[in-house]
Amino acid sequence: MKKYAIIVAAGSGKRMGKLVPKQFLLLKQKPVLLHTLDVFLKAFDDMQIILVVASEYVNDAKTISRSSVSPKKITITVGGETRFHSVKNGLAHVPEDAVVFVHDGVRCLLSEKLIMRCYYAALEKGNAIPSVRPVDSLRVETHNGNVVIDRDKVHIIQTPQTFDSKILKAAFMQGYQESFTDEATVVEEMGERINLVEGEENNIKITRPIDLVIAESILSERL
Amino acid sequence: MKKYAIIVAAGSGKRMGKLVPKQFLLLKQKPVLLHTLDVFLKAFDDMQIILVVASEYVNDAKTISRSSVSPKKITITVGGETRFHSVKNGLAHVPEDAVVFVHDGVRCLLSEKLIMRCYYAALEKGNAIPSVRPVDSLRVETHNGNVVIDRDKVHIIQTPQTFDSKILKAAFMQGYQESFTDEATVVEEMGERINLVEGEENNIKITRPIDLVIAESILSERL
Repeated sequence: MKKYAIIVAAGSGKRMGKLVPKQFLLLKQKPVLLHTLDVFLKAFDDMQIILVVASEYVNDAKTISRSSVSPKKITITVGGETRFHSVKNGLAHVPEDAVVFVHDGVRCLLSEKLIMRCYYAALEKGNAIPSVRPVDSLRVETHNGNVVIDRDKVHIIQTPQTFDSKILKAAFMQGYQESFTDEATVVEEMGERINLVEGEENNIKITRPIDLVIAESILSERL
Repeated sequence: MKKYAIIVAAGSGKRMGKLVPKQFLLLKQKPVLLHTLDVFLKAFDDMQIILVVASEYVNDAKTISRSSVSPKKITITVGGETRFHSVKNGLAHVPEDAVVFVHDGVRCLLSEKLIMRCYYAALEKGNAIPSVRPVDSLRVETHNGNVVIDRDKVHIIQTPQTFDSKILKAAFMQGYQESFTDEATVVEEMGERINLVEGEENNIKITRPIDLVIAESILSERL
């Protein structure tokens, strides 16, 4: 089956306290986003990438793409108002007979193995959503306080959220709703059951300055 | 008010794939546990520490305590079968008119400020449980699949879980239940309301080998 990865990197990076969005910051002398692109390109020889960025960063995205292991396999498109709209823009470049990965550009530490695991699980079940278990206790707010949630039943959701593209494209024909916080929620709204697969502890999102330092440590340990 | 910190370091460290429990591993040439002890000892001049370790590590705990900033303020005691029993053993050394912090020995990156925040909140409300917000989506298993939890209502629980010692000692007179996954759940069983306070992103538990590397990065950034 054809393989398409929509890499969402349309964020403005305000939380990092820098002018440069986090996906363009350097990690081991290489932009975060370039790490992400290269993992996907290496996972499958026939991977095609749709890279979604804010309009003001199209040129930066082009420069980064040219440094990747397969620049010709990368198509750059512009993001929308929300993540939903950005993914929808990306999906316009994806055919119906494919497996499509939707991935956060700032999750640059995933392994090729995780991409493969998501691919085969999505082929079989229609979707594959990587998740890990919480290591800490969790509480949830109630109308008059808060209560413990049974941690053994909770999953922390990651990306790449992976789908049969026919299902994902149909789901994205729905009108936008605020409850669409990720692609799984969009597909679920159509009545699909969400299929969780094993994610990776190190598949973190680079959102705070310290995350770059942590990511650097993790990469160094791998060598 | 008197201040007692029960530092729970009775784990056997099996998850690290090493013979030495994680609280005794070195972080910047200093055992993880020693980092933890020193933060508590520095936070308040009148802090007393009850250090709970497995019986086979009492000598190691003594050695570490002697290297701390105030060895005389540390009492070593032996852990029990579960965390509940370990904390109960520690509580036997705590008077009724105190604020008591119960803290994971392997959370060595907390700040003195967090300890102070918990102290004052516990003085006012009877308990103070530090927590942070999840950065990822969460799902919870149901009888026939899984559903999204509203992330804005979820809190990730940390330590030091901090209490009026009279309340905590009374709570620990209850018989052990499997639902007692932390001290907050024990106190809650008596009908107390749990008071969440702001925790710290960096207040991580050292449980996996990579956590030591991450902790080292975080410490280096502080200097």
